Amino acid sequence: MSEQLRRTLRDELAKITLIDPHTHINPHSPASTTLADILGYHYYTELAHAAGMPKAEIEDPAISDKERVGRLVEGTVPIHNTTQYAWLVDICRRFFGLEADTLDASNWEQVYEAASQRMESAEWADTVLRESNVEAVFLTNDFDDALEGFDTSRYIPCLRTDDLVFHLGQSSVRERLAACSGVEVHDLATLRAALEQRFDYFVARGARACAISLPPDFAPQPVADGRAASALEAVLRSGTGAEESHRRALQNRVFWTLAELCDAHRLPFDLMIGVNRGVYAEGVHQGRDLYDSRVSLIQYRELLNAFPEVTFPVSVLASVTNQELVSYAWIFPNVVTNGHWWYSNTPTFIHRDATARLEAVPATKQIGYYSDAYKLEFVAPKFAMYRDCLAKILAETFVIDRGWSEERAVALGRQVLRGNVERIFPGR
Amino acid sequence: MSEQLRRTLRDELAKITLIDPHTHINPHSPASTTLADILGYHYYTELAHAAGMPKAEIEDPAISDKERVGRLVEGTVPIHNTTQYAWLVDICRRFFGLEADTLDASNWEQVYEAASQRMESAEWADTVLRESNVEAVFLTNDFDDALEGFDTSRYIPCLRTDDLVFHLGQSSVRERLAACSGVEVHDLATLRAALEQRFDYFVARGARACAISLPPDFAPQPVADGRAASALEAVLRSGTGAEESHRRALQNRVFWTLAELCDAHRLPFDLMIGVNRGVYAEGVHQGRDLYDSRVSLIQYRELLNAFPEVTFPVSVLASVTNQELVSYAWIFPNVVTNGHWWYSNTPTFIHRDATARLEAVPATKQIGYYSDAYKLEFVAPKFAMYRDCLAKILAETFVIDRGWSEERAVALGRQVLRGNVERIFPGR
Amino acid sequence: MSEQLRRTLRDELAKITLIDPHTHINPHSPASTTLADILGYHYYTELAHAAGMPKAEIEDPAISDKERVGRLVEGTVPIHNTTQYAWLVDICRRFFGLEADTLDASNWEQVYEAASQRMESAEWADTVLRESNVEAVFLTNDFDDALEGFDTSRYIPCLRTDDLVFHLGQSSVRERLAACSGVEVHDLATLRAALEQRFDYFVARGARACAISLPPDFAPQPVADGRAASALEAVLRSGTGAEESHRRALQNRVFWTLAELCDAHRLPFDLMIGVNRGVYAEGVHQGRDLYDSRVSLIQYRELLNAFPEVTFPVSVLASVTNQELVSYAWIFPNVVTNGHWWYSNTPTFIHRDATARLEAVPATKQIGYYSDAYKLEFVAPKFAMYRDCLAKILAETFVIDRGWSEERAVALGRQVLRGNVERIFPGR
Repeated sequence: MSEQLRRTLRDELAKITLIDPHTHINPHSPASTTLADILGYHYYTELAHAAGMPKAEIEDPAISDKERVGRLVEGTVPIHNTTQYAWLVDICRRFFGLEADTLDASNWEQVYEAASQRMESAEWADTVLRESNVEAVFLTNDFDDALEGFDTSRYIPCLRTDDLVFHLGQSSVRERLAACSGVEVHDLATLRAALEQRFDYFVARGARACAISLPPDFAPQPVADGRAASALEAVLRSGTGAEESHRRALQNRVFWTLAELCDAHRLPFDLMIGVNRGVYAEGVHQGRDLYDSRVSLIQYRELLNAFPEVTFPVSVLASVTNQELVSYAWIFPNVVTNGHWWYSNTPTFIHRDATARLEAVPATKQIGYYSDAYKLEFVAPKFAMYRDCLAKILAETFVIDRGWSEERAVALGRQVLRGNVERIFPGR
Repeated sequence: MSEQLRRTLRDELAKITLIDPHTHINPHSPASTTLADILGYHYYTELAHAAGMPKAEIEDPAISDKERVGRLVEGTVPIHNTTQYAWLVDICRRFFGLEADTLDASNWEQVYEAASQRMESAEWADTVLRESNVEAVFLTNDFDDALEGFDTSRYIPCLRTDDLVFHLGQSSVRERLAACSGVEVHDLATLRAALEQRFDYFVARGARACAISLPPDFAPQPVADGRAASALEAVLRSGTGAEESHRRALQNRVFWTLAELCDAHRLPFDLMIGVNRGVYAEGVHQGRDLYDSRVSLIQYRELLNAFPEVTFPVSVLASVTNQELVSYAWIFPNVVTNGHWWYSNTPTFIHRDATARLEAVPATKQIGYYSDAYKLEFVAPKFAMYRDCLAKILAETFVIDRGWSEERAVALGRQVLRGNVERIFPGR
Repeated sequence: MSEQLRRTLRDELAKITLIDPHTHINPHSPASTTLADILGYHYYTELAHAAGMPKAEIEDPAISDKERVGRLVEGTVPIHNTTQYAWLVDICRRFFGLEADTLDASNWEQVYEAASQRMESAEWADTVLRESNVEAVFLTNDFDDALEGFDTSRYIPCLRTDDLVFHLGQSSVRERLAACSGVEVHDLATLRAALEQRFDYFVARGARACAISLPPDFAPQPVADGRAASALEAVLRSGTGAEESHRRALQNRVFWTLAELCDAHRLPFDLMIGVNRGVYAEGVHQGRDLYDSRVSLIQYRELLNAFPEVTFPVSVLASVTNQELVSYAWIFPNVVTNGHWWYSNTPTFIHRDATARLEAVPATKQIGYYSDAYKLEFVAPKFAMYRDCLAKILAETFVIDRGWSEERAVALGRQVLRGNVERIFPGR
C-alpha cells in the first residue's frame, strides 16, 4: 500500500467536522481543569494498576492533582507501548506543547503547567472543540438529569437507562425516579407512566437517543402483565433481595417498555452489548468491568422482530461478535453498526471490524465511531486513531483492491464519520 | 507487498478452468433470462431491504422484470460500498458492456437491454460457462429430483438432505419421499430402504456428494433402534406436532443413517454448519436466516470418530469457527475445509480464514471455494473475488514471507482451486 | 511496509539470547539422536496421518529410524504448504546442510546421515543451544520427577500438575505421589501435605513455575472442607469410578490448593486453557487432542480475585479467546499473556494475537513466546517464526503507523522476547 495514498485520505477525512455520537462528557464541566483529569482517566489508572502500581497510591485522596500526575507519569512507564497511552501523548502534543514521544520525569511538570494555564481559560472547552474540529457531542445522561444549564445543541442529551433496567430494586433508584418524574411507582401503570414522563422530558429537551449497556447473558423478552405485576410487587417489597426470577422478569419488562417508548418517541435505542460489571472487585474506579465473549445477537432476535420501526445502533464489546453484528445489520433494517467499544477500541480490532462492516453493511447503516470520552480532550486523539484505521482500509480495500477513486473513498468515509450520525440521530 | 506480484499470481490463477463444487443452479434454467434474475438475487433484495426499501416494493408480483430492476437499481444505492454489489458491477461489465463503476439511473436501461439480448441466445448458459472459464458446476438437488433432462457431467448432481433430516414431520415431505422412492415409510426398515433407494438413484445418475445445512445447536448422535422406532412412530402419528424430544431423536437417526449411506456409497458428506433459519421473519425471500456464532465442531466429535471412511467437507458460517475447522482438518483425516460460506464470503473473512487454512491444513484437504450461485453469471465474479484474496495470500505469505517461487505458489493455488475438487469428489 | 525495515528489525531481534519459558524437553536427552526424533514430532505424524498416511505405517514398532523417516518424508508431501513443515525445513537447512526447499526422495538420506553424524557428538545439545542463541529452557516436569542429573540453571524445572488435578482418581497417580512425597494421602491434611512437599522439593531444586493445562469447561472454585473431604473419600474409595460430582469437587479442591501453594512459594502458575483430550480416539500418539473454542476467562474470575499475589501467565488455545486475554491482562495485575499455544502457533494467528497484545497490554506483562518443543532443534525455527511475526508488527504498527524509532521498537521486542521471562520467572 502506498503510504502517501493513506496519508492523503487521512488528511481529507480530518477536514470533516465531527459530531461525536457517544460520550460521557459532563456538560457542566466538559473539559479538564488539570492534567490530573487526563491522567486520571480509567484507561491510565487501570493500566498503571495492572502494571503494578498500588491502588492506594493511585486513589489516595490526600494528594494534590499535581502529585497524582507525577505518580501516574511514573506508573505509566510500563504502558508506553499501548494505544491508550498514545492518546495521552497525542493530547499533550496537540494541546500542551509536549515535543517528546513520552510524558516522563523530564518533561511532565512543564506540560502540567502548560495544561493548567490553557485550562484556566473560560473558553477552554470551546477551544478544545474548535481545535478538535468537533461541532457537538452526545452525552450520557442519568434518567433524572435535569438537562438544564447547557447548550443542548452542542451537548446533546441521551437517556441512559442502565439504572432503570438493572437497579430498580435499589430504593435510591426508585426514589430518584419518583422525584424526577413526579410519579410514585406502585404498579405497572405507574411504572410505565414514570418512564413515559422521562421520555417526554428528555425528548422535549433535545435527547436524540436512549442508551443502555447490557451484560452478556441478557436476552430480552416480553413479559406478560400478570408475570410483570408479580415481579414488580416482589421487587417493591424486597428490593435487591427479591428472587432472581423476579428481578429478571422486571428487568425484561422495563427493557421492553423502554423499547416501546423509543418506538412511540421515534428515538433510536443504543444497545451496548456484553459487559460484566465488577468482575475485578479490587480494581480501580471504573477499572473493574470485563466480559464473557460468548454472547450472540440471536439473544436479541425477538426484540429486533418486535420493533421494526425502532433503530438499534448496536455496539459489541468483543470483536468476535462483530461478524454477527455485520450479518444482522445486513439483514435487519433496524440494526445499525455503532463504533468500536472499549476493549475493541484499539487499532487492530478497529481495522478488522471496520473492514468487515465497510465490505458488507449498507453504507447508510454504519456509525463509524464515537469517542466514549469523559473529557473533551480525548475526542480528538481517539477520532484521529479511528481516521487512521479508516484511511488505511479505504486505501487498501477500496482504492487499491477495488479500484475506487480517492474522492469516492473519502465520500464513503464522510458518510460513516459524519453523515450517518445526522441521519440516524436527527434533530427535531 | 508488490502489487505487481499479486497481479501476476492472480492472472495465473485465472487461467485455471474451474469446477464449482457447490451451487444452487437449476440445470433446466442455469443462466438468467433478464437482469431481474441477477438483481433479484437475495444478496441484493435483502441488502436493499435492510437499507430501507420496503419489502412490498421489492416483491411486488404485479410489476415487470424491467420495473423491478429499475426499483432495485435505486434501492441498491446505499449498498454501493459492499462486496456483494461489486459482484453485480463485475457481471454487468464482464457480460453486458457496462463501463461505469455503478449501475445507476443513467445506464441501467442500456445494460438491461444488452443483457436481455445476450440472454436470448439458446447458447447463453454455455457462453457464460465458457467466458467464466468454468467446466462444470455442482447442483443442490432435492431428494426427489428426477435428475433428468440435463448433462450430468456439466451439471453434477448433489443430494441435498435438509428436508429429510429436519422436515420429515411434514406429511408433504413424506409423500414426496414415498413417491420418488416407491417406499412408504412406516418403520425404521422402510425409512432406511427409502433413503437407500435415493442414494442408489443419485449415485447412479452421477451424484458426487450428499449435503446438508445444519443449525448451530445440532450435535449429531447415534440413536438406538428402540428409541428411534418410538420417535419415528410419534412423528408419523403427530407430524410436526410431535414432541421436541421425538423430533430431535428422529433427526439424529436420519442424519446418522445418511452418514452410513455416504459410507456405503463412498459419497462425501458436505456439512454446512451454523445456520438458524427464519430469524428475521419479515425479511425478503431467502433473506431471513442468520446464526449464533457460538457453535463448536466438538459437537461433531462422535460423528467424525464413527465414520473414518466418510469424507466430510465442512463449511462454517461464522469466521470465528474457522480456527476450529483448521484444527479439526489438521488432525482428522476425514475433515476437509470447504469454501467460504455466505456471511463469511467477503474478502476480509476470506483472507483471514484462507490464510489460516493454507498455513496449517494439508494442501490436499482444502476445497478453496464454491460460488453458492443460483445463476451461472455469479460464478465468475465470486471466483474472481476469491482468486484475488488467494493471490494476495500467496504473494504475501508464501512468496514474500516464506521465499517460495511464483510457480510453487501458483501450484498451491491450483490445488485448492481445482485439483482438490476432482480429488475429493471424483467421478465414477 | 518496507521489507527492508522488517528485515532490519528481525535481524536485531535475532541477536537476543533467549530463555525459552515453556518446553517439553527431556533434560536427560534434550536433543535428537536421529532425524526420526525430528520427523516423529507429533506435528508431522498427525498431519501426515490427517493427509492420509495410515497410523499403522507411522507407528509401526518394527521398523528402523531410517525407514520411519523415509516413510514420513513421503507422507509429508501433502503438508509442504504448512508452517509446521517450514520448521522442519528450517531445521534441516540450519543444522544439517539441506539446500533445497523441501525434504524429498532426492535428498532425505543425505540429510539423515548428516544429522546422525552431528547428533553423535556428546556436545550436540550444547551445540544446538549455542547455534540457536538459547541460554536456558524451561521444562515440564512430572510431579514425581527427581530433578536430578542435569544442570537446573540451563534446564529449568517447572512443576506440571495435570495429573494431580485431573487424575488423582487413578491409583497409579496416588501411588506415585506417595512414593515421591513420602506422604500417603488419606484425608485433606495429608493431601495438602503431599502437595506441599512437592512444592518444597521443586522450589528447592530451582523450579520457577507451576503449570497446568485445562479443559474448556473447567471453572475453578474453592471447595469447602466438608465437601472436599467427602469428595476425597469417594475418590479414594472408588477411584476413577467415583461419581462425576465428587471427581469435579476434588479437582477443584486440588487446583485451589495448588494456587495457595503457588502463593506461599511465590511461584507463577501457568494456566494453559482450553484443551479437550482424546477427541480423536484413533489419532496418532499426541495427535488426539482438540478443543471447544467456546471458553471464557470469566470462568477464572473467582480465582483471579482470590489470588492477587499469584502471577498467572495465561495461554489460550483458541485465537478467539485472545481478546479476552488481552482485556483481562489489561485490568488484572496478576494476569500475564503467555505465548502462542499449539493450534494458535501459526503466523496468521500469532500476528493478530500479538498485535492486539502489544497495542493494549502493559509491555511488562507479555511473555512473547515459548517453543513448546520436545527436542532442542525445534526451539530455533519456532522462535524464528515468532520473531518474523514480531518484526512485522513492530515495523507496521509501531515504526510506520506510530512513528517509533527502530531502537525503541527493538527494545519493546527485547522486553517481550527476553526481559519479561526473567522478570516474571525470576531465579532465586
